[in-house]
Order: sequence, then C-alpha cells, then structure tokens
Amino acid sequence: MEFDLVILGAGSGGYEAGLYAYRRGMKVAFVELSPETVGGSCLNRGCIPSKYMRHGAYLLEKLSKGEKYGILFDGLKLDPQKLAESRDKVVNTIRENFKKFAEKLGIRIFYGRGILKDPNTVYVEGEEREIRAKFILLATGSSCTSLGNLKPDGKRIFNTDQIWGLKDFPKRMLIVGGGAVGVEFAYIYRMYGVDVVVVEIMDRLLPYPSIPEESSRYLARKLKRLGVDVRLKTHILSYSEEEGLKVNLSDGSVVEVDCILLGIGRKPNTEGIGLEEVGVEKDGKGFVKVNEYCQTSIKTIYACGDITSPLMLAHKAMYEGKVAVSHMLGNGDWRRNENLIPKVIYSAYEIASVGLTEDQAEDEGYDYRVGVVSFMSNPKAMDDGEDEGFVRLVVDDHTGKILGCHILGPHAGELLHQVIHLMKAGMGVDSLAKAVFSHPSLSESIIQSAMEVYYGPMTWIRKG
Amino acid sequence: MEFDLVILGAGSGGYEAGLYAYRRGMKVAFVELSPETVGGSCLNRGCIPSKYMRHGAYLLEKLSKGEKYGILFDGLKLDPQKLAESRDKVVNTIRENFKKFAEKLGIRIFYGRGILKDPNTVYVEGEEREIRAKFILLATGSSCTSLGNLKPDGKRIFNTDQIWGLKDFPKRMLIVGGGAVGVEFAYIYRMYGVDVVVVEIMDRLLPYPSIPEESSRYLARKLKRLGVDVRLKTHILSYSEEEGLKVNLSDGSVVEVDCILLGIGRKPNTEGIGLEEVGVEKDGKGFVKVNEYCQTSIKTIYACGDITSPLMLAHKAMYEGKVAVSHMLGNGDWRRNENLIPKVIYSAYEIASVGLTEDQAEDEGYDYRVGVVSFMSNPKAMDDGEDEGFVRLVVDDHTGKILGCHILGPHAGELLHQVIHLMKAGMGVDSLAKAVFSHPSLSESIIQSAMEVYYGPMTWIRKG
Repeated sequence: MEFDLVILGAGSGGYEAGLYAYRRGMKVAFVELSPETVGGSCLNRGCIPSKYMRHGAYLLEKLSKGEKYGILFDGLKLDPQKLAESRDKVVNTIRENFKKFAEKLGIRIFYGRGILKDPNTVYVEGEEREIRAKFILLATGSSCTSLGNLKPDGKRIFNTDQIWGLKDFPKRMLIVGGGAVGVEFAYIYRMYGVDVVVVEIMDRLLPYPSIPEESSRYLARKLKRLGVDVRLKTHILSYSEEEGLKVNLSDGSVVEVDCILLGIGRKPNTEGIGLEEVGVEKDGKGFVKVNEYCQTSIKTIYACGDITSPLMLAHKAMYEGKVAVSHMLGNGDWRRNENLIPKVIYSAYEIASVGLTEDQAEDEGYDYRVGVVSFMSNPKAMDDGEDEGFVRLVVDDHTGKILGCHILGPHAGELLHQVIHLMKAGMGVDSLAKAVFSHPSLSESIIQSAMEVYYGPMTWIRKG
Repeated sequence: MEFDLVILGAGSGGYEAGLYAYRRGMKVAFVELSPETVGGSCLNRGCIPSKYMRHGAYLLEKLSKGEKYGILFDGLKLDPQKLAESRDKVVNTIRENFKKFAEKLGIRIFYGRGILKDPNTVYVEGEEREIRAKFILLATGSSCTSLGNLKPDGKRIFNTDQIWGLKDFPKRMLIVGGGAVGVEFAYIYRMYGVDVVVVEIMDRLLPYPSIPEESSRYLARKLKRLGVDVRLKTHILSYSEEEGLKVNLSDGSVVEVDCILLGIGRKPNTEGIGLEEVGVEKDGKGFVKVNEYCQTSIKTIYACGDITSPLMLAHKAMYEGKVAVSHMLGNGDWRRNENLIPKVIYSAYEIASVGLTEDQAEDEGYDYRVGVVSFMSNPKAMDDGEDEGFVRLVVDDHTGKILGCHILGPHAGELLHQVIHLMKAGMGVDSLAKAVFSHPSLSESIIQSAMEVYYGPMTWIRKG
C-alpha cells in the first residue's frame, strides 16, 4: 500500500486525525477539494470567523460598561470592512499554517474530490489518480441546505457559507432559527448596530434537549434587553422583494428587512463519494453508520464528524477522528461518546453544556441532585463586571457521579473543561467539592456548586 | 460548650471554614476586629479591589486593539474617581452580603480582638467576654510591614493597605518589588497612564522558584513594551522629599516620582493573640506550626492561611480552613498540600502555575518530559486577539503523572483549574492527552501540550 491512511477531507476532524495518525507513526495523506478549502467549514465559514466577530461584539458590550472602570470616550465608530479584513486574516493565517505544517511533516494533500473505489482505494477526481491505503477515514463534513422556498442567493438571502461576503452591515436583518448559529449572529449584528429580528419555530431559543431551559430563558431575556426582536413559535410564511424584503410571519406581522440570514439546515456530505458503490451503509437521514470506534460497515473504512450524526460540532469530529485512528492501530480503549461532547454557544452569553440536564436525568430515571450557583455572588465575576449567569451541576444521588454540567456566563466555554475531564474519568462530585481552586476565580462557582450538592448553599445567593 | 467552633478572623480562610463547618452541622462563631474588616485583607485591601482595577487595565489594553474589530473611537478619558467608586462598591457589596448571609444562617460574629485564654476559650477584647468552644481555628491573616527606612505614610509612600486611598492617579510612580503585587500594580497604573518604574532586587520579575523563568521573561518584555521601566537587580539606596520624591537607586541612577508603592513585606498576625500563653508553637519566623491537618501543637486549636506559611494566598487559607474543619469532624482524608495550591498572577498577562517547574522537577531527581504549546497557534486565542503566551506541562516520564503546569496567557487563572483537578486526583497525562475538548477553545492548548508529551507537536508552532 502507498499509505497507511488516506483521509477524505482536511477539515477539523480530518486534520486532527491526520496529525494524530502521523504522530502515531502512520503514513498519511489527505484528499481535499482545493487549497482554499483546507480547514473545512469550521475554519473557513464557521466557528473561527464567527468567533472573531463575536469577540468584537463582546468587546463592544464591555465598552458600554467602561464608565464603571473610569473609561470614558466619545465618537464611537464601527467599521465593518476593518472587522472583516482582520477576521479573514486570522482565517487565512490558520489555513496557510495548516498546509505548511502538513508539508513540513511530509503529509501529502491531494486536491480534488475523493471518491471511494474499493475498501482500500480512493480516486481523486481533480488529479485523476488513485490512492491506495490500508485505512480510509471519511471526514467530508456537511453543507448548507436551503429551507422551503427561502433560496439563498448571497445578495439578500444568505446562508452561513455566504454571510462572510456581506461587506457592509445592513440596517435591518432577519435571522431564521434561534439555534446556536442564529443566536450567535443575532448578538454579533446587534452589537454592531443592526436591527435584528430572530424567528424560531419552537417555543424557546436553543431548543435542544441537552441545553437546560434556564439557559434559553436567560439568553432570550438578554438578547431582548440588547434590542433584539426575538419571536418564538414563529416562522416565515412568505416574502416579497421590494426596496428591501417584506416578510410575512406566522404571528400575523410583517417585517421589512434588508436581508435574511438562514441560521439553520445542514446536511452531511455523503453523496457522490462512492459510499453506495463500495457498500458503506448510511441511515435514513444520510448519515454514515458507525460503531463506537467510528468504524463503518466496511472494516477498513472509518468516518468521523458531521457525517456520523446530527451533532455537527468541530470538536466532535476531532475527537472521533482520533478514536478512529486509535482503533486502526489496535487500541480499543477510546470510544465515541456524544454524551461527553460539550455544546458551547457564543452569543450574548457563553453557554456551555455537557452531559445530562435535570430533565434528561429525570427522564432517564436517575435520582439526582443539583447544585446551582449564581455568578452574582462570585467576586471575580463582580470584578470583571460580568456577574450574570450560573453553574448547574447535575449529580447522581446514589453514586455521586457527575451526570451533567451547564454553565451560562463569562468564559463558560473554557470553565466547563474542568468538569468534562472529571466526567470522562468517572470521578464523583466529591472530587470537585474538595477541589483546590484559586481565589478569586470564576471556577470557584463550579466548586461551590459541587459543595452545595453535598452541604447546601455556600454563597449568599441561590438562583436558578 | 457554647460553640463547636470559634474562628479568629472572618477573612477568606476563616469565612470559608466557618460556612463549611456550619454546613457540616457545627455551631460556629467568628471573632473579627470590626464590621469593616469582615472579609479580611483579600476582600478589603487585596485581591478583590486589585482585580477590579486590573480588569479596567485589561479593558484599556483590549481597547487599544479595537481597530482590528472595526471599533474606533476618540476622546478617551480616564476617571480615577469613577474607577475607585465602582471598585469600592463591589468590595462593600461582598462584605455586606457576607455579614447578611452569616446572620441569616445564625452564625454569630463577635467584634473585637480575639485572644486565646486556654485550649477552649477565646477572650473578645472589644466585647469584654469569653467564648468557649470545642475547637478554635486561628485565621488571623497577615499585615504589611515596612522595609528598611521606607516608612509608608499613606501620602507619598504607600503600602498595599493605603494605596486604595489614592484619589488621583499620580504622574510618576515607583513600585518596590517585582513580585505578584508589584507587577499587578505596575500594569494597572501603566494602563491608566502613569509613568511607572519597578525596582526588583532579584534578577527577574516574579522571582519565585515555583514560577518558570519563561513566565518572568515574557512578563518583563510585555511590561517594557507597555512603557514600564523595569529595573532588575536594583534597590533603593535613599530618597529625599522635595517637590516630589527624589530616589537614588543602586544602579546609580536617580528617579523623580510622585509616590512610592511598597509591593513587598507581609508578616503573619501571630502576636498579641495569646499563642505563647496557651502554648501554641510558632517557628522562627513567627508562623504557627501545623501538621498536615492544620492542627497546631494544641489539639483543639487549628490554624489556616497566612499564619501557617509564607505562601500567603487567600485560596490557600480557604483550602486549609476546610482541611481543618474536616479533621475536627474526624475525617482524615483531606490534607494540606502546598504543591497543589495554584499561584495566579494578574498583570500584563495572567500567569498561573501549579506544581513543579522543569527546574524543580530536575532538582527533585525526576526524569521528566515537557509539553509546550504556544497560544500563537490557538484559533480561539487568535480570534480573541490574545495569542501571546504558552502552556508548559511537566510530566513524570516513568509514571506519566502530571508534576506541574504553567500557563501564561488569556484567562490562565481559570484554565489551570482543569489541570489542578486532575493532579489532585493523581491522574496521568493520558487523561489530558485523550480528553474531550471544545473547539475553538483556549483549553485545546492544554490538551495539545499533553498530546505533545506523548507524540510530538500537534500544532505548527512550538515555542518556549
């Protein structure tokens, strides 16, 4: 064989798996559509550019509280071009360094569409050649889909592939979908001065069972306070293009906006890559069927990331990629586990969840306890002027095992890691209740939530 | 006995211990000097107000990079009064809520100086009464000391008790000591426009064996870039008061400043509280001798925090306070361990350390490996415009045990907790190398440092 491993797709999952395989001694190659798509959706049209803009929005919000720190200014001006240029520079830097690093390590990238020919062969459409490898990892990711009669045109109706081309901030924007993507863009554009309407068909923002309702409620309240027009249980009936867009909503109202952003709808990229021909099984929704080692129905072919389940998160892909490689090398101790994959939402708050919510624990028949600590009584949060939010820790009452943790507030996406690691190690709540922490720190609130599970509230405010 | 536990000092250690003891079913009372000193040095004249001001400094630094986020403004004005007012409001809020919460729980606070009378009796000087308790916890903290002929007067020469009264920002300030306190104030005042000179007698900033030299170097470079005049291996020879202060330094130079801040010198509050009379043993430097359960030479008397060792950190006190209470209740599984106490410095970077540095690991005879990952290649750090710094993970080569971790960079003080918890649980580096993380996140760099220990660099930049 020419290679030990050939990976279809050099996005988050493929790239991480490739590097890991290389470090474990495998001879690795990537097949990726073009030099411009290395890094995949996350890097080029997803989490990385959006997090850049979100940081700008966060800075603007911080600025609005500057007076409390004796920081006064006037003449605030917002420059969308500068924002976009600097954002794109970060994206390009990462992408080019990805390529350089692969080159330096001797990891080959073939450009073109990779199509399975047999359990050990990939045909690269662009380069018109076949590559043979002991193992194949499918990491082809996902694509935007359109929604009903809302056809994204990149001019007035944007999907999340197209929105990066928006050169100026519109005056008024309608965002379809109050999920992770919708609420992130709602916050970004609102802080940069856009009038934003969000329509969500379900009865709450972030309508995922794995996110506690408290998080949805807190977020809706905050977005409204910032001036976002949040409409739940609402969808678009029809629209007409006039000077702008005139949109009829299911609540009977008509809103006039300059553009629409579709924050929903992605499908796995599992068509046209030879799955059917080689016999790689898919489920009814087009996802590749994998076992707990990310192995498909064909033993030499593995899959990771967006194509394995609707949980389309870059870090799920990165984790699964390494699970797959590890299994190829004969290690069976590392497994898929969606329950341990954190969901981190960056909007008007950081909202981070791992494991079960209280409702889910109840549904699964657990006797559980919960520790709830508000950042309102956390000295570091008060010092930082960001004392909104909470930690909710869900614990099995019989075993003390940590079932889930849900943080809404400052740096929630980083804070959660300390709980994820303990959950993965199967540690009990006592490991947190007796933890060493630094003072003052936001992390204290996590430790206090664990102490509360044992002993009752350790701070002066208990809030849900 | 009237009480199960009486605690001398309602500062960080005493307060945390008292709450914990209450939740474990003990009848608790505090003895504290006055209603204004509840919360101790950390809350009233230490970490809490300084972290508030430091957050303002951090905001100013963020603002200076606003253009990259399309955020432009002019007419920046700094208002020291507003800063001080808001800062003091946070401090007062925490202090008053401390008291209210204690009152609500029925925990009594006696005001006055507490003096030991016998192994179960404390005399309260202000209230002229005796309290008897099964156990006594000494949590009296520490005080500023003066240094040679530099006598703090609160007008031109300030110690860290007095600096909070400084109503306007001076034009020029000399800070004595490049330790944790000195570098924090240097950053704060510099960002608020003050010309700052820092003199440090040792050959590096943060001259602690537990902080890697890289952290000192990074910090010195950054402070200099921000315009701080950092002078190492330098001390004050003499000074004279003229219009301002004319200070002769050991490097032969003369600097003229408006005021001097003494960032060094604290002594344990172990005098005049009856230790000698009751037979509680002290060491040669005035610290109370304690065993690993924080028990003194008198079995019913325990001690925690600044009075047990020169490691004067609020969270050390909080941890030891709980160790002590736990032991009073007959649990011996929770012990003092200074090796697990994190050191977190808030200056031009956050600098967080736990456990051994590489030098210390070498000195202690370990064969160790180190994983070093720069934030320069971390996508979240790049998005946030804070890609300076590193993670250094020190691992025992034979057992895989994590010996230490040193983070310099964004939110280092929070990030470190995920490593502290694993170290406390005795987990190996593999628990981090195979961890689940979210992407993009700063925490990824920690996981990558663990992967590097095993497999070699996982990112394109390796930097020390």
